[in-house]
Amino acid sequence: MNQAPTDRTRIRRVASNAHYDAATLHAIIDDAYLCHVAFSDGKGAHCIPTACWRDGAHLYIHGSNGSRMVKTLLETASCVTITHLDGLVLARAAFNHSMNYRSAMIYGRFDAVEGAAARQAMERFMEKLAPGRQGEIRPGSDKEYAATTVLRIDLAEAACKVRAGGPKDDEEDLDWRVWTGVLPLARSALAPQRDPACTVAAPAYVREWASALALPE
Amino acid sequence: MNQAPTDRTRIRRVASNAHYDAATLHAIIDDAYLCHVAFSDGKGAHCIPTACWRDGAHLYIHGSNGSRMVKTLLETASCVTITHLDGLVLARAAFNHSMNYRSAMIYGRFDAVEGAAARQAMERFMEKLAPGRQGEIRPGSDKEYAATTVLRIDLAEAACKVRAGGPKDDEEDLDWRVWTGVLPLARSALAPQRDPACTVAAPAYVREWASALALPE
Repeated sequence: MNQAPTDRTRIRRVASNAHYDAATLHAIIDDAYLCHVAFSDGKGAHCIPTACWRDGAHLYIHGSNGSRMVKTLLETASCVTITHLDGLVLARAAFNHSMNYRSAMIYGRFDAVEGAAARQAMERFMEKLAPGRQGEIRPGSDKEYAATTVLRIDLAEAACKVRAGGPKDDEEDLDWRVWTGVLPLARSALAPQRDPACTVAAPAYVREWASALALPE
Repeated sequence: MNQAPTDRTRIRRVASNAHYDAATLHAIIDDAYLCHVAFSDGKGAHCIPTACWRDGAHLYIHGSNGSRMVKTLLETASCVTITHLDGLVLARAAFNHSMNYRSAMIYGRFDAVEGAAARQAMERFMEKLAPGRQGEIRPGSDKEYAATTVLRIDLAEAACKVRAGGPKDDEEDLDWRVWTGVLPLARSALAPQRDPACTVAAPAYVREWASALALPE
């Protein structure tokens, strides 16, 4: 499926980089720890970064019940965007310079996830951050869950845009004597920093951290 | 100065992590290649990722004259957000898990930058991407500049939020036998990928790429 689900998700600029399939969307979300959520209220437009994860065909976030973001998101439409920057593309012509990236935009309205579903969602979030850790930590109390809202947004109205590869210059510029190519960027994991008060041996998800997350292309 | 410039920039949640000084704001912008811009139009709220750079007390972006984003940004208020994710914070209690990050939010309205100022801004952008490259490439033509809008937003109404350091658990949870600490993340540069058609030796900004951008904490 490479057709936009709605008019506002149809990508006009460099439409050949558009993707509307679930596999591309899920991969971009699953590779992200955070998203940016846009919404408007009486004070204008806001763009708030927050942790995110996916379960099936929904993207999840959470926040304190009292937060401005949580209150407003339950009452209004929003747009959630995730962007991974993969490199700088150096072309011969100034205006053909570009960036390689993978981005996803999701339109819709968040719903609150309640009760057992909220607990399950938060445990899934922990599983994404540190697989197996949920069984090791002091779990959330009823009071903590009661003070927190878990929200989810349906992934039905979404669009992805992906640019990869080298520069694309026009025929007439190909003789310019300048270095061309890609300066790649990636998110990478650095060595874990143990809390000074911690005397427990590192579990697998900590031992494997610095190797698991390096993302060479 | 650690006082919010306006009511909508005053950070309520974990206010001790708030920063309103120019040095913090400038450092967060200067370390970013892209931002997310939120605005609203008749189709709802939008959150669009785009390249950004700074000159003095303004953040700059650019886009095609015909793009939805450019047209709308010149007519309406927006919110620009930059977020750097620095690590996952693993605590003893589920609800004390956190992330280390540096984020900046800027509120205001974009203005178009015209004529010589637009050229100067775009050259400054190139200088950020690849210092010294502007003199090597085929510069933008009058036609290319005419098809592009350079926009800037004043940094006067902005707020930053920064979390760093290890987990903070409550006294009653300190005896939990679980690994605690930080799993750090950083943006890193990978080896440059030369365009197959390129026969020019790598300049300094390419040779130094993979070492210059590694950001260990």
